[in-house]
Amino acid sequence: MLTKNQKKIVVSLSQKKFRNQHQLFVVEGKKGVDEFLNSEFELSQLFSTSDEFEVEAEKLVLISEKDLKSISNLTTPNTALALFKIPKGKKVDDSKLILALDDVRDPGNLGTIIRLCDWFGIDHLVCSKETVDCFNPKVVQATMGSLTRVSTHYLDLENFLKSSDLPKFGTFMDGASVYSHILPANGILVMGNEANGISTQIEALIDRKISIPRFGNLQNTESLNVATATAILLSEFSRRTIEM
Amino acid sequence: MLTKNQKKIVVSLSQKKFRNQHQLFVVEGKKGVDEFLNSEFELSQLFSTSDEFEVEAEKLVLISEKDLKSISNLTTPNTALALFKIPKGKKVDDSKLILALDDVRDPGNLGTIIRLCDWFGIDHLVCSKETVDCFNPKVVQATMGSLTRVSTHYLDLENFLKSSDLPKFGTFMDGASVYSHILPANGILVMGNEANGISTQIEALIDRKISIPRFGNLQNTESLNVATATAILLSEFSRRTIEM
Repeated sequence: MLTKNQKKIVVSLSQKKFRNQHQLFVVEGKKGVDEFLNSEFELSQLFSTSDEFEVEAEKLVLISEKDLKSISNLTTPNTALALFKIPKGKKVDDSKLILALDDVRDPGNLGTIIRLCDWFGIDHLVCSKETVDCFNPKVVQATMGSLTRVSTHYLDLENFLKSSDLPKFGTFMDGASVYSHILPANGILVMGNEANGISTQIEALIDRKISIPRFGNLQNTESLNVATATAILLSEFSRRTIEM
Repeated sequence: MLTKNQKKIVVSLSQKKFRNQHQLFVVEGKKGVDEFLNSEFELSQLFSTSDEFEVEAEKLVLISEKDLKSISNLTTPNTALALFKIPKGKKVDDSKLILALDDVRDPGNLGTIIRLCDWFGIDHLVCSKETVDCFNPKVVQATMGSLTRVSTHYLDLENFLKSSDLPKFGTFMDGASVYSHILPANGILVMGNEANGISTQIEALIDRKISIPRFGNLQNTESLNVATATAILLSEFSRRTIEM
């Protein structure tokens, strides 16, 4: 049975302030919960309408469908909602390409970017403190479990870039074509905010400005969405590692 | 002033049935409306809270903010909502790469894909009849005006592919790596449904199965989202045209 206090905590976790206070976040749906259970993430509590999950008895709370609905962020039915502990920060490994986000605000974009990191084997994602929280329920849902395989770090991006000797790449409209640019196997690729791109302070720390060439109508085409631009750039960095 | 009948028609256009009946669709916001006004699309009627648009007087209806809000699909404020005529079908030009969609259902994905076509100079997008309507208000909004530059055709995809001599590419998990595959400057690239990929009938018509190599954890990573996969593939086809 779901207690009033449990309900209050779960519902509060849709806000970053309370996620930080409790050091917990929400994962929903059988598939997502299973992926997190089979990962390094530590389960705090599992609310489920069925006993199909193999978890320690004291962490399982069997609840009614009605109760599940009252704490769920989803509109479609599901059988489980789990609280996992926010992991302690790991060290950023700089032996491979690192992706860094300068103020990406849209949960769907961050979710897509984390899935892309997973696909292209990017183990470390560094986010500026203004970037949307990766434990936001919408982001967790959009990552489809990729969050269990990509370490996401919220750091002062300016300090992080200053402290690293790796070559720093950023996308700019007037950058050199990524297709003809020599791309190393390690480095930091910075992607900017949806509306404003990379900020002036961060731009000053970029060593190499690159761009995705535009093949369509040169006057009118809008810029690419940050998630699709990230897809193309990670593909470019990755393909070079097998060409070398 | 907004009449009851005008309001009824505008609101009805969020449904495909009524868009087909009236042969009209909705564009919202100053920037979007301006892009469509400066395109080949024909304005039917413009509802605006200001007279800042240069359109024929009989097509302009000045309305209150309250009335605009009552017919708008947006939650954020804007100054204009326009009805444009659904254009007559053009011939599909097969001298360049054609993108074809087999049952893409999500409006956001279709919007992103139309923006990608615009960026990469793909002039013709062929959609199966089950694919979400490109004049759906969510798609129009997500395209950011790219819909004015990409001709979108709803056809029987099976017949269209059968009738074309162009090489037909499709993405499959077991396809050959797109990075090492020879890609021509013209052809048809087919992308499949979000959940099920390319259907069996369409698969039978594909000449070359390609895939985007996966660099991450081989067991677990989910497939790429159709919009990000399209981004990577259009980038690959385009980069070859400048390598040649």
